[in-house]
Amino acid sequence: MLATVDLNSDIGESFGAYKIGWDEEVVKYVTSANIACGVHAGDPIVMGRTVRLAREHKVAIGAHPGFPDLQGFGRRNLAMSPSEVKNYVIWQVGALWAFARSEGVLLQHVKPHGALYNVAAREPALADAIAEAVAGIDRELILVGLAGSELARAGERAGLKVASEVFADRGYNPDGSLVQRGHPGSIINDPEAVAVRVAKMVKEGKVAASDGTEIPIRADTICFHGDTPGAVELLKAVRGRLEQLGAKLAPIREFIA
Amino acid sequence: MLATVDLNSDIGESFGAYKIGWDEEVVKYVTSANIACGVHAGDPIVMGRTVRLAREHKVAIGAHPGFPDLQGFGRRNLAMSPSEVKNYVIWQVGALWAFARSEGVLLQHVKPHGALYNVAAREPALADAIAEAVAGIDRELILVGLAGSELARAGERAGLKVASEVFADRGYNPDGSLVQRGHPGSIINDPEAVAVRVAKMVKEGKVAASDGTEIPIRADTICFHGDTPGAVELLKAVRGRLEQLGAKLAPIREFIA
Amino acid sequence: MLATVDLNSDIGESFGAYKIGWDEEVVKYVTSANIACGVHAGDPIVMGRTVRLAREHKVAIGAHPGFPDLQGFGRRNLAMSPSEVKNYVIWQVGALWAFARSEGVLLQHVKPHGALYNVAAREPALADAIAEAVAGIDRELILVGLAGSELARAGERAGLKVASEVFADRGYNPDGSLVQRGHPGSIINDPEAVAVRVAKMVKEGKVAASDGTEIPIRADTICFHGDTPGAVELLKAVRGRLEQLGAKLAPIREFIA
Amino acid sequence: MLATVDLNSDIGESFGAYKIGWDEEVVKYVTSANIACGVHAGDPIVMGRTVRLAREHKVAIGAHPGFPDLQGFGRRNLAMSPSEVKNYVIWQVGALWAFARSEGVLLQHVKPHGALYNVAAREPALADAIAEAVAGIDRELILVGLAGSELARAGERAGLKVASEVFADRGYNPDGSLVQRGHPGSIINDPEAVAVRVAKMVKEGKVAASDGTEIPIRADTICFHGDTPGAVELLKAVRGRLEQLGAKLAPIREFIA
Repeated sequence: MLATVDLNSDIGESFGAYKIGWDEEVVKYVTSANIACGVHAGDPIVMGRTVRLAREHKVAIGAHPGFPDLQGFGRRNLAMSPSEVKNYVIWQVGALWAFARSEGVLLQHVKPHGALYNVAAREPALADAIAEAVAGIDRELILVGLAGSELARAGERAGLKVASEVFADRGYNPDGSLVQRGHPGSIINDPEAVAVRVAKMVKEGKVAASDGTEIPIRADTICFHGDTPGAVELLKAVRGRLEQLGAKLAPIREFIA
Repeated sequence: MLATVDLNSDIGESFGAYKIGWDEEVVKYVTSANIACGVHAGDPIVMGRTVRLAREHKVAIGAHPGFPDLQGFGRRNLAMSPSEVKNYVIWQVGALWAFARSEGVLLQHVKPHGALYNVAAREPALADAIAEAVAGIDRELILVGLAGSELARAGERAGLKVASEVFADRGYNPDGSLVQRGHPGSIINDPEAVAVRVAKMVKEGKVAASDGTEIPIRADTICFHGDTPGAVELLKAVRGRLEQLGAKLAPIREFIA
Repeated sequence: MLATVDLNSDIGESFGAYKIGWDEEVVKYVTSANIACGVHAGDPIVMGRTVRLAREHKVAIGAHPGFPDLQGFGRRNLAMSPSEVKNYVIWQVGALWAFARSEGVLLQHVKPHGALYNVAAREPALADAIAEAVAGIDRELILVGLAGSELARAGERAGLKVASEVFADRGYNPDGSLVQRGHPGSIINDPEAVAVRVAKMVKEGKVAASDGTEIPIRADTICFHGDTPGAVELLKAVRGRLEQLGAKLAPIREFIA
Repeated sequence: MLATVDLNSDIGESFGAYKIGWDEEVVKYVTSANIACGVHAGDPIVMGRTVRLAREHKVAIGAHPGFPDLQGFGRRNLAMSPSEVKNYVIWQVGALWAFARSEGVLLQHVKPHGALYNVAAREPALADAIAEAVAGIDRELILVGLAGSELARAGERAGLKVASEVFADRGYNPDGSLVQRGHPGSIINDPEAVAVRVAKMVKEGKVAASDGTEIPIRADTICFHGDTPGAVELLKAVRGRLEQLGAKLAPIREFIA
């Protein structure tokens, strides 16, 4: 068996004089990058630079829209209506699309960021708003959402290709949702344990949930956080393990139907 | 002789709970609309609504990028480098493009707003930055700039179609620049005088400058401000006069080569 | 019996080129004004101008802090921690304090705005954060909160003087909370009915709840919205009625113990 | 001879998830700190934390107001009118004042940041606007400006105590202005040369200008940038040299008349 999987990371989250992340390192190891759109993070100068960086490393790019909350880095929920969310997603995807176009690359996907990602995983109306925003711009764009989430279902309803995302270093509840940050088992720190989990997700389509049971999970793309210490090391370790196992690493557009 | 000319106005400048302008009236009389992109004015909700409004009235739309200065409404100069300006224009044009695409209409043109418009009329490096931003997104986009300005020249250098803009109610210096606001003769208040000036610009390609001499001027599109009292009346009066004279009113894409 | 009551309204909510409300009219009829602090609405230029306007009309002033969400006018909930809320309130109250000081007037009170007001009425931790922010700046500041709310209790816990606020034109649930906007009975439109309700609140300390029962309510200050059509008329009508009934109208600092 | 001098640095410039500078190190060696006010940098959470940090190290604090341009870190000129600048300074100083008050410390000074500092050094109308903003809040606040600048003169006109600031590692033109960044001699890189220059400024009131001549300079406070590599080392070296020479290091309020 030869599984194909995408490795993704959020990059382009710097802002003005403020630098976050090790984008120059991260792009060496991922196959897709989620680029902030100047709303929860990033700015136009950073966006241009980041699209060029991704292009140079032949990394596929996606828009990473978030809530308009720079001070909170898009990690706090903001009580927007579905219609407001839809318009904010159109705005951000369009902005990144223009940078892609300016640099001669195609926008591959859209993945919501932070609190918007989390709320869209649970609330169908917001998930539909995001999916409709994306579909209205370009039906060829791939929507990336948490495996088994409302966002993934909304993407299908909107006629979009959907990529199921898993997290390398996060614990899962028996229902397939992520163990909340701060709770026991929410983060897997041991790199070897992470590598073993990822291998199982990719090759067997299963992950051990927090209660010890194995649950099915679809892993089209694996998310790595680029702004935490040790992130690049973890990414390299997992990538190495996957290659060793014979998995093929490729941007999602090369294998998502 | 049958001249063709475009009438344009800035719309979509409301923001959140804040309403500016009489967009619903203005779109009845213009042939093109410049829509704010959520940076110096406008927000994603307003952008979506405004693109729909323009579509319903068959008014061609353009992006109206400005400096990131909402409190100053984009009217204060901000000392950005050409590279910064270029990226900010890409961001804004892309954002509006996505709304156009979502609503099934084509983006016709790009016209910088306020202080960005003024500085781009004078400074070749900033003018080139704007023109290159536009050309990098789509060479079919028309760049709108002050007649005879550096921006118009930059558009030609970048291989773009350029529309020369004139102002219905502003005074002109003998060198073709606008009389600065606040100076004598900067604003023509008498609607009849405005109508006569516009008719001369469109039919003869001439305007009386502040020193009484007649100077040549190319009028592809005439700008009306939609947020001043009496604006709609002025627009209706000028439109009536032009139709009476046999001028054809059409969006710039229908006649700019 | 001679009741004393304060009439308050939100003013200073304009921003840059954007004008909201009829501040010049409203200040003629209220005894206290809540002034936006440049975060959910208002800007420094508006703040200075509004403090001068209130001073000229001998209207007492208060800071009106809100969530950092200008596009949403502070009306959408933002999931901030109590510590974040505390710091955001300190920031805003300090900013308005400086304008008061510059104009030679004393800051009388602090009243949270919009979604922050609503969430502080229900959640003790956020209510305490606000009360502690105010108490840390100046223990003489009066905290204004919904009558019977968690915010009113938090003010007392923090050792602040608290003013209980009622709404002239809003319906009340039997538990003393406001009928949610959009639900039947949330808004009382008939000016005569509003005047009768207000008179009862001020003179008898009672209001008819949505189920017809009379509930006790403490009315130190009555809120009027200055940005809705008919607001000034309603304010004048209620003010007239109260004066007719012999109620004394005065800023809260003149009668709150 | 026993000169007294203050050492200052900008701190509190982080924003949300974005960290800038080595504030925890810098506060060990300076006697005064300029704290960003949440406009060109900083946010309310950072402001509270930074005021506490300064208090713990017995470092005097000042407000560091700048242009409302977070993306440009307040380093780009924004064409504000004197009246606009005045109100923006009031807003920012008041905000920081409230944090000082909450933490039980006194605000010592106000020093404009970046482009606002530079423009206020040259333009009397903007300098007066800043000085009047400060004087209107509290006449005991010390205004910090470039030695010999328009801002220093404006402070005197407004009846404020003024501290003349010198830069440890910047070159000076013969007229006492700073050699523009990017020009030869704008930055002194050699720590030993910096220490020698500073010693001469403090003990003799002189500095070697870019043309080799010695010019008089008044050094009440010496600025160190905390966000550049090697900044802390430079600060320690200069501090050591000054102590060795018998200079007394103290916050400006202890010696400015």
